[in-house]
Amino acid sequence: MHTAILIIQCKDDKGIVAAVSRFLFENNGNILAIDQYIDEEIGDFFMRAEWELDTFGIAKDQIYEQFGNQVAAVFDMNYTLSFNFPKPKMALFVSKLSHCLFDILSRYYSGQFEVDIPLVISNHPDLEPIVNAFGIPFYHLPVTKETKASQEAEQIRLLQTHGIDFVVLARYMQILSRDFISHFPNRIINIHHSFLPAFVGAKPYHAAYKRGVKIIGATAHYVTEELDAGPIIEQDVARVRHHNTVDELVQIGQDVEKVVLSKAIKYHLAQKIKVVGNRTIIFS
Amino acid sequence: MHTAILIIQCKDDKGIVAAVSRFLFENNGNILAIDQYIDEEIGDFFMRAEWELDTFGIAKDQIYEQFGNQVAAVFDMNYTLSFNFPKPKMALFVSKLSHCLFDILSRYYSGQFEVDIPLVISNHPDLEPIVNAFGIPFYHLPVTKETKASQEAEQIRLLQTHGIDFVVLARYMQILSRDFISHFPNRIINIHHSFLPAFVGAKPYHAAYKRGVKIIGATAHYVTEELDAGPIIEQDVARVRHHNTVDELVQIGQDVEKVVLSKAIKYHLAQKIKVVGNRTIIFS
Amino acid sequence: MHTAILIIQCKDDKGIVAAVSRFLFENNGNILAIDQYIDEEIGDFFMRAEWELDTFGIAKDQIYEQFGNQVAAVFDMNYTLSFNFPKPKMALFVSKLSHCLFDILSRYYSGQFEVDIPLVISNHPDLEPIVNAFGIPFYHLPVTKETKASQEAEQIRLLQTHGIDFVVLARYMQILSRDFISHFPNRIINIHHSFLPAFVGAKPYHAAYKRGVKIIGATAHYVTEELDAGPIIEQDVARVRHHNTVDELVQIGQDVEKVVLSKAIKYHLAQKIKVVGNRTIIFS
Amino acid sequence: MHTAILIIQCKDDKGIVAAVSRFLFENNGNILAIDQYIDEEIGDFFMRAEWELDTFGIAKDQIYEQFGNQVAAVFDMNYTLSFNFPKPKMALFVSKLSHCLFDILSRYYSGQFEVDIPLVISNHPDLEPIVNAFGIPFYHLPVTKETKASQEAEQIRLLQTHGIDFVVLARYMQILSRDFISHFPNRIINIHHSFLPAFVGAKPYHAAYKRGVKIIGATAHYVTEELDAGPIIEQDVARVRHHNTVDELVQIGQDVEKVVLSKAIKYHLAQKIKVVGNRTIIFS
Repeated sequence: MHTAILIIQCKDDKGIVAAVSRFLFENNGNILAIDQYIDEEIGDFFMRAEWELDTFGIAKDQIYEQFGNQVAAVFDMNYTLSFNFPKPKMALFVSKLSHCLFDILSRYYSGQFEVDIPLVISNHPDLEPIVNAFGIPFYHLPVTKETKASQEAEQIRLLQTHGIDFVVLARYMQILSRDFISHFPNRIINIHHSFLPAFVGAKPYHAAYKRGVKIIGATAHYVTEELDAGPIIEQDVARVRHHNTVDELVQIGQDVEKVVLSKAIKYHLAQKIKVVGNRTIIFS
Repeated sequence: MHTAILIIQCKDDKGIVAAVSRFLFENNGNILAIDQYIDEEIGDFFMRAEWELDTFGIAKDQIYEQFGNQVAAVFDMNYTLSFNFPKPKMALFVSKLSHCLFDILSRYYSGQFEVDIPLVISNHPDLEPIVNAFGIPFYHLPVTKETKASQEAEQIRLLQTHGIDFVVLARYMQILSRDFISHFPNRIINIHHSFLPAFVGAKPYHAAYKRGVKIIGATAHYVTEELDAGPIIEQDVARVRHHNTVDELVQIGQDVEKVVLSKAIKYHLAQKIKVVGNRTIIFS
Repeated sequence: MHTAILIIQCKDDKGIVAAVSRFLFENNGNILAIDQYIDEEIGDFFMRAEWELDTFGIAKDQIYEQFGNQVAAVFDMNYTLSFNFPKPKMALFVSKLSHCLFDILSRYYSGQFEVDIPLVISNHPDLEPIVNAFGIPFYHLPVTKETKASQEAEQIRLLQTHGIDFVVLARYMQILSRDFISHFPNRIINIHHSFLPAFVGAKPYHAAYKRGVKIIGATAHYVTEELDAGPIIEQDVARVRHHNTVDELVQIGQDVEKVVLSKAIKYHLAQKIKVVGNRTIIFS
Repeated sequence: MHTAILIIQCKDDKGIVAAVSRFLFENNGNILAIDQYIDEEIGDFFMRAEWELDTFGIAKDQIYEQFGNQVAAVFDMNYTLSFNFPKPKMALFVSKLSHCLFDILSRYYSGQFEVDIPLVISNHPDLEPIVNAFGIPFYHLPVTKETKASQEAEQIRLLQTHGIDFVVLARYMQILSRDFISHFPNRIINIHHSFLPAFVGAKPYHAAYKRGVKIIGATAHYVTEELDAGPIIEQDVARVRHHNTVDELVQIGQDVEKVVLSKAIKYHLAQKIKVVGNRTIIFS
């Protein structure tokens, strides 16, 4: 089923829900989901509505303007309009660890993700056979301090050539430059192997072991300039005990990482995420 | 702040959200929360809306009728209208175990529950001093096979005299009769000390131990005629290991029970629960 | 490192730990792990000890007898002696669902499982390409009511030919016969897609939806004659809400299933499981 | 039942378990629990053994010396010997928040804690009636910058007068001085309302809200000089969503805090905690 998705933000006021829902109703829109949220701190109203497109009374390429004139202008709204088609194009960046890659490809294979994966990019050659087994092109772009800028340029060229919508860092062990990130604002999802904001940076499982925590976690977030500080999409945790070695923390943590990352991808694909400042609204 | 709460159920159709929100908007209603749900199995649409009453354009005692005429009639809706005042009156039934009672009284004391507790009824005298310390009358009504009917009649009389809105069985170890239950449909909340539907009936921790489960749980549900089979409001679990004795399961489980029961009470007080068949919708 | 693993069971008595640890110490055994458990219900003492084999003072093929004479006879012990080599041989049984299969193969690929997988058997051909991508032989043995007995005979022949130590039912949708099970006592691990003992049998997610539970789960257990009633090895759960459809329960549940099944395999490979009646001890 | 508890630490070596268990066995000790742990990072061996005292062959006041001569000297062990009697004496420090206090008193009332509570100290008078209802003396010692030193001196005097073994800070909102802490090394348990090391210091729920985390937590730890940096005893978490206000985070978090703090007290009372550097071993 083809659907349209509207996400709006404006100062909270009376009549917003009525105005939006009347616009949809009067144009014969069958609402599939509607969710709203009032941020009491900043006083803003947020809303996501999804409705059937095929029976809608306004042509697809007219909706944005008509909604703007008839509704958004009245309430001084920021709004985005998008559709659940065509399938978005996702690029995967990996290094040597395979658990997140496998988990994503497994869901892709079974149809759980409505996405195309035109390419996988890695700074190491190790995972090429896996990726090829799924019929996906694999680009090996080794990175050194000296080649980093040129390799990122090549990565951006590849992403643009393939019309990539968003990038998933599936335990990609390179820090992206400010320039690279600026090409994909809120379009790069990273999995960090700790319960952020605890244990920012390298070797979080070692840091967790050293601090003696009783629970470890993983965090999927959008990548921003500041390392591991972008808006959090999803987190989860697992219980550990004093006798777990760092290697065991790594294994226990990987089960959390892969599930958390895949949930974040699912929210992103369903277009249920709205970034507000450094927080995310996850619409239901 | 005084609020009105509308919960509706009808066949799913276009324009319901628009009609309801327009009704509120045109009467100057400031919507505080709106949540909707479509049950795909039965094809019904559900919605809960809460709005400020003080500035609303329709008098409190006219809302039900006007909404009925202007909106509900159009969509053949079932609907309830209620208010967040006056404070509801909750009765507690207890036996000898104190953990749920303490947890509820602790929240009552700290103002977490917006509720009045006019009385506690017990078939044992043990917990009277605790209850009295909170300034709440305690009624000791011992129950035997022979006196059960007369004691339930006395209980009902007390509940009616005190204008009780709903009853919480805080580990009350008597099975209520069909007649008693019929006086309070979806108004009696029980905490069962297992992850229902596993381990219905008496001694669930013993049964859990015997079955060798690795996780135990607790379930808060509305009481219906069939034992431990009413609509589930909330559940939670805790991990256990083979070396935990039955007594340890009991202690671990009690921490789950008290938190689950109090969450269920909170949902009930916020009027966020809609029972549909044998399931509950918990609006957000 | 080569290790020996001793698991004992006997009536609880004084001096057991001393006797076992002295036997190991006097023969120059370097204990790597020791864990004990007293079952208060049946009054039995259980212990697992693992020690370095290479520096041990008794020849590998003499340990069983010498321990029997010097220690086990004194306390009337039941005991098993095993080793962490050679790698055990695991057979996978699958049908059409791929999530558990992928998860297991992913861990096999990354070296997380110390195991050989000589073959995968399925009653459907769908998953053959995946399995072949890992260089593992795939046997397609379709099953109908009429062919069930002969196909099971063929399965047993294949398992014996390949010297299989244990079988994992990775969402294999056939019920094994009593005869098949008797060939592999406590050697067949199944993943059931519910929090047992709730929702035994077919379509547990539909049953969970219908009962309106707020948490779903998965259970890995050894297969015994009675359906879904064997000793539980591991369980875990995930929270769901009223608006989750059965299809969503299935997706949410699959993430739990695969992790629970892989944990059970890990315990089995580490030889940390002792079945007692219908319960399992999971040694640490 | 009277028991003795031995906790040892030494360089890992062969024969330690044998030596300890033989010492117990030869003196007719009935071992109730034995647990060991090898810290691979520092190469140390740790062990906790608990056995029946009444039938033990060595007099209570001779055990320490005899174990020292016969066993500890051989392996150059650090060791502590303690007993499960008399009941330890616990002091509670509180401020205005009641949830942890109620939870502790509830367990004390029901006999879940084997402890005496000779006094509660607070810098505010609010909770006096609750404490008195349990028959426990309440000392109101208000604290200002100017009076802090003298009030701490008075606190220490009270604790010493009552023979207090350990102190529990049940949401006590004052930072203890280095001097105060030095009187009770690893004898002061604090509950911090975040998942440490995230959100050290004041107002962690505000910080968690601002960071947009999807999970909040609580941490029980021994108090050391550095704020919120002492050895972690227990942690747990709860899931939150974007629509939860700071006030809701506080309420959700309080349910975690009280259970985590009470678990930490339980481990401490059972003498199952060994502090190693800045980590804790929790023996089973």
